Amino acid sequence: MSRETLNVALAMGPGVASRIFSAGHLESLPAGLRLLNHEPMEEFSSRRSLALLAETDILLTGWNCAKVNATVLDAAPRLRHILHAGGTVKNHVDSACWARGVQVSSAAEANAIPVAEYTLAMILLANKRVLQIAGTLHREKAPVEPDGLFPDMGNYGKRVGIIAASKIGRHVIRLLKPFELEVVVADPFLTEADAQALGVASVELEELMESSDVVSLHAPALPSTLNLVNAGLIALMRTGTTFINTARGELVDQEALLARLERGELFAVLDVTTPWVLPPDSRFYSNPNVLLTPHLAGSLGTELERLAATALAEAQRISRGEPLRFPVQDEDLAFTA
Amino acid sequence: MSRETLNVALAMGPGVASRIFSAGHLESLPAGLRLLNHEPMEEFSSRRSLALLAETDILLTGWNCAKVNATVLDAAPRLRHILHAGGTVKNHVDSACWARGVQVSSAAEANAIPVAEYTLAMILLANKRVLQIAGTLHREKAPVEPDGLFPDMGNYGKRVGIIAASKIGRHVIRLLKPFELEVVVADPFLTEADAQALGVASVELEELMESSDVVSLHAPALPSTLNLVNAGLIALMRTGTTFINTARGELVDQEALLARLERGELFAVLDVTTPWVLPPDSRFYSNPNVLLTPHLAGSLGTELERLAATALAEAQRISRGEPLRFPVQDEDLAFTA
Repeated sequence: MSRETLNVALAMGPGVASRIFSAGHLESLPAGLRLLNHEPMEEFSSRRSLALLAETDILLTGWNCAKVNATVLDAAPRLRHILHAGGTVKNHVDSACWARGVQVSSAAEANAIPVAEYTLAMILLANKRVLQIAGTLHREKAPVEPDGLFPDMGNYGKRVGIIAASKIGRHVIRLLKPFELEVVVADPFLTEADAQALGVASVELEELMESSDVVSLHAPALPSTLNLVNAGLIALMRTGTTFINTARGELVDQEALLARLERGELFAVLDVTTPWVLPPDSRFYSNPNVLLTPHLAGSLGTELERLAATALAEAQRISRGEPLRFPVQDEDLAFTA
Repeated sequence: MSRETLNVALAMGPGVASRIFSAGHLESLPAGLRLLNHEPMEEFSSRRSLALLAETDILLTGWNCAKVNATVLDAAPRLRHILHAGGTVKNHVDSACWARGVQVSSAAEANAIPVAEYTLAMILLANKRVLQIAGTLHREKAPVEPDGLFPDMGNYGKRVGIIAASKIGRHVIRLLKPFELEVVVADPFLTEADAQALGVASVELEELMESSDVVSLHAPALPSTLNLVNAGLIALMRTGTTFINTARGELVDQEALLARLERGELFAVLDVTTPWVLPPDSRFYSNPNVLLTPHLAGSLGTELERLAATALAEAQRISRGEPLRFPVQDEDLAFTA
């Protein structure tokens, strides 16, 4: 069956295209696709944008894309697909899109991968106490007996607790498969069948906190998850536990966490905090049991190219008449970050 | 088919048993196996040892085991298997063992796993420049734009170069499978068919050095590999490359490496150096582009239990009439660490 060529138009904020498309990425679109504009639309109201929209079958969007509302859809009678080369579509895709039968896809899965990779690396280092021992060696410049410092060190016979079987949480679980670590998950929406399919044990959050050697937080930031990891839960962690947060500072009682860190009872790897940028006098900076990173676990640098590659692969599926791999429905938005 | 019960005897240096057997490990040996001694033999000449050897079918050895030579074998007429709960058997298994038909097994595969895990974590952090950026954040206590510091950061579209498809090198290759990284291997003994089976590209060492974003060394320490990574090869690495050494300092020209580190051209993660313990004034300690760890990548802490579990699993296979999973032949010793 022969298909007509589909017109792809780009729409995203200033400077985004050069970050998500590597050299040559747009030069050769797959067969059956034609790129209408190398310069992305930054709004949908100019004469140029209206002319492009009139011809667009597939809108490939990036961060800071203008809102695709009913007026924009009126100007785009051929539009059938919006493919987002980014995580959330909340900010630019209007309910009107689904109402008119436009299919939406996002690269949220691809966006989850780097966070899971960061988390995996930190879990492996935490169980082995690598960064603590490296710190001691660099400071003391003298022989260090690693298991003299930490007799419990090692990636064997340890329990990793994953809070929330979210997209990122599930990628972490997938990446933990090759290791001899026990993985437990706390998620009120995770069914027993789902847990079995994931190969993990489903436990209550309290049990996860008190029994895990490493706790990693992967819940979405929603009104219902604010302060999810409260002081009572933080108190449950055993001495020596490592707490990893790549989600949001607002999900964790920062003061309760800091108090236990300052008593030397916990370790923490924090890619996110509250406030988002810590003041210079924050005790998180100077605590020797804390590794801080500046919101770098998500897609950055070359990883942004994966977002564009994911959206372009969706376009290729459409041109072949295949279903979207990462469809997003209107009703999904309430449950995701 | 019913089998007789086989007698297992322990032999290793002082203090080793308590490190490799977790509580209860020895209380319940699998069916068909009987433990002769909870207190390991530390030599093979005492009256107690001779009495034990006379009854021993399987010798389960650990670090600092006394040499099993022809005299010991004379005292152990039933001995058919030596199972080592450690890496190399070079130090305690004599050629006489194989000559008399005693089968030998080692936990070198299990011992390789933690090194590969450490390497994987360091590769993921290196590509993302995580520790460099964390260092900047902790030092400056101010907002940091990660990809402003390192535009090339990311675990996507990067090349990892593995020097030597050794046991550890192959475990690293296995662990790298789930990631979107290109893996190339330099190993003069790796056939094209082997490389294909491993899913990697086989390249010359020079090409590996000059084209990889991360170079990780996994060659065994042999007379032929001394100074393998010489000054000429070190000069080939591009600016920004991370060099990981978990093998031996002697395989690398330390001065040439340090010179490029001090020019800020390379990053290094060094679990091993020459000398084995660096003097307090070593510039490796203070170079901001170096992460030093004190020989902790190998099995330590709870990971030692994996060595004992591996040897006990071999004993179980023997009791079931199954072949050894990790047999060691006399002629293997020349090619391994």
